[in-house]
Amino acid sequence: MARTADHDARRRGVAEALIAVVARRGLGEASLAVVAEEAGVSVGLIQRYFRSRRELLRFAFEYLELRAHERLADVVRGDRDVPQVAYLMLETLLPLDEERLAESAVWVAFLAAGVVDEELLAPHQRGMREMDEAIASGIRQSVAAGSSPDHLDADFEARILTALVDGLVIDLVTNRQYVTPADARRVLAVAVDRAFGLEVTR
Amino acid sequence: MARTADHDARRRGVAEALIAVVARRGLGEASLAVVAEEAGVSVGLIQRYFRSRRELLRFAFEYLELRAHERLADVVRGDRDVPQVAYLMLETLLPLDEERLAESAVWVAFLAAGVVDEELLAPHQRGMREMDEAIASGIRQSVAAGSSPDHLDADFEARILTALVDGLVIDLVTNRQYVTPADARRVLAVAVDRAFGLEVTR
Repeated sequence: MARTADHDARRRGVAEALIAVVARRGLGEASLAVVAEEAGVSVGLIQRYFRSRRELLRFAFEYLELRAHERLADVVRGDRDVPQVAYLMLETLLPLDEERLAESAVWVAFLAAGVVDEELLAPHQRGMREMDEAIASGIRQSVAAGSSPDHLDADFEARILTALVDGLVIDLVTNRQYVTPADARRVLAVAVDRAFGLEVTR
Repeated sequence: MARTADHDARRRGVAEALIAVVARRGLGEASLAVVAEEAGVSVGLIQRYFRSRRELLRFAFEYLELRAHERLADVVRGDRDVPQVAYLMLETLLPLDEERLAESAVWVAFLAAGVVDEELLAPHQRGMREMDEAIASGIRQSVAAGSSPDHLDADFEARILTALVDGLVIDLVTNRQYVTPADARRVLAVAVDRAFGLEVTR
């Protein structure tokens, strides 16, 4: 058991080193040698934990999704109303601090790699479906409670919101002089109100 | 003059070869040698037109924006109402056919490269602002004509729409089994109606 825990911690440590290198220098520069240097270990050691650079990439992409899940768990624990939980869940995905900004930069690099190597996209695709389902379920709950109008198409409204969040991530990562964190929060808040069929108060 | 036209055509030809390689194999594989082979020219010839691979990347990203502009010009020429023009302008950015799917894949690769080399992002950032301004101007026109409610914040509504389109591009490129072109069109149509404060009819 101790061996397995140590093995997992080592793999996470290597993934974190990769993420740091990709955020700073891009995926093209993240060779095993550079990642090993960042992690303070040897290339040989990395190769004991990952059979190839590609396996390391896959693991690191999964690891990003895992971190996103941990943030979600913090949010859904509180005692809040359903639209507010939906807002906060979606907000966890936005790069509103340095840590998430680095992760989002890596996310864009992984998406680019995934466009020509589709297996890499599996964690992203799974995460998107799970988020859609969670948001749609929140909207259905709100309709059932009489807080949202009956006519809402919950799956469709959820799709609008998760697409919007993907776009806001891209905008915050690629055009920070133009799109500020405050802009992104306001856009998301209004979109969540509309998705839940609530009065828009601005 | 003939020399200049030829020079420009050569540069565009090389950019098109780069775009084809990136769409198929990713930016990491798009060395000058590979691009030269794709273009059917020598590496030396490419180097006569571009001082470096980076200069070629910058030119190719500009070229993608130029193509996007050409598509826009086709759309705004027609005799349509303002929300419809806004919808069609935004729709030109979606990868709804093979050509735009390849271009969007390249766009994601360029964004990833731009995260660590910000100068590359200039055409993307410029394109975003121009689209925001065009959409906001359409909304103001619609308000002035009495077709949209007075209280609309045109700049803000435009920001929602362009963020949403960026997200839809990402979703269509990275999760095509889940998000279909028909989904993306429906999401965009509803979002445009809401941005213009129109009755949503679904």
